Amino acid sequence: MVTTTKARILEEAAKLFTEKGYEATSVQDVAQALGLSKAALYHHFRSKEEILLAISLQALEGLVRAGEEALAHPDPKEALLRFMEAHARYFEENYPFFVTMLQGIKSLSPENRALTNRLRDRHEANLRAILRRGVEAGVFRPVDVALTGRAVLSLLNWMIRWFRPGGPMRAVEVARAYHDLILRGLEDGSTRAQGA
Amino acid sequence: MVTTTKARILEEAAKLFTEKGYEATSVQDVAQALGLSKAALYHHFRSKEEILLAISLQALEGLVRAGEEALAHPDPKEALLRFMEAHARYFEENYPFFVTMLQGIKSLSPENRALTNRLRDRHEANLRAILRRGVEAGVFRPVDVALTGRAVLSLLNWMIRWFRPGGPMRAVEVARAYHDLILRGLEDGSTRAQGA
Repeated sequence: MVTTTKARILEEAAKLFTEKGYEATSVQDVAQALGLSKAALYHHFRSKEEILLAISLQALEGLVRAGEEALAHPDPKEALLRFMEAHARYFEENYPFFVTMLQGIKSLSPENRALTNRLRDRHEANLRAILRRGVEAGVFRPVDVALTGRAVLSLLNWMIRWFRPGGPMRAVEVARAYHDLILRGLEDGSTRAQGA
Repeated sequence: MVTTTKARILEEAAKLFTEKGYEATSVQDVAQALGLSKAALYHHFRSKEEILLAISLQALEGLVRAGEEALAHPDPKEALLRFMEAHARYFEENYPFFVTMLQGIKSLSPENRALTNRLRDRHEANLRAILRRGVEAGVFRPVDVALTGRAVLSLLNWMIRWFRPGGPMRAVEVARAYHDLILRGLEDGSTRAQGA
């Protein structure tokens, strides 16, 4: 892959935004880290927000694609597992882009945020489709699909607060443990059976 | 309750930090909103970080106390429900303090962060105690207590990203729905029984 200047700017910016925060990072910081002049950088992006938007859209487009590969599986439980694994794997493999996207959304203008929201909503709609299919097939309990989808994404997205790539656990292992918890629940099945 | 100047400063600052973000809010903004001079404000707090620390500690102390009231219940399922309800209710009733605390932790110095981490760890330890008790009593499956505790807090804490007080749902209702999901799981019990 040829790494263009544009791609290098996005990578360096995502790294700095993740480390120092979006507000605390200037266009000058990004240019300096790459050995570029500010003018050279402005040739590619007109503003810091334009860089943030490009990073966020790239992260979300990749995330949506990764999630969509899980949709095809006919078994809703397996589709849910694959969706959660794909989300977690994508997060770990694209850590600075993913963190910048999730943390940066609040810094985007309403117009730009609408562009990212459309992708975020598509990802969430894909997850809800899996859940709805499971409920309709009687594989899942008749849960509130919107709230359950939100729960799944809460588990996965909160990982930006505690999970660091290169630690003792892979993100995909966390996703598997969460899938098991969400699927089977905490309650002991034998106790429940006795109670029923 | 007598509202002291100190308390008014914390309330106004928490409101501004939540609306505009900690980095984007200056001590001058807080003083101005209260009709105080900067000098008068500095009489009570030596820096913006000292204000952030005071807000974070107050939020965490209240949260720990709210969670501890749930610990006493002898039934682990009911204790978990009460813990989750208390966390969600505290979040909703102390919205600016809670959001400032969760979003501001990264802006604290390592020394100050250690003070907030101690309280956060105590809250998490209380939750783990409930889960461990449930596992030992055979009420809960033999799950990974640390990871399950993290899952519960992920669900509740991610609410700062989408839940707004005054919306159609109360925070405590969300907590109840999450408790039901975590406890009973997504999988249809009758299907599971047939499969077993």
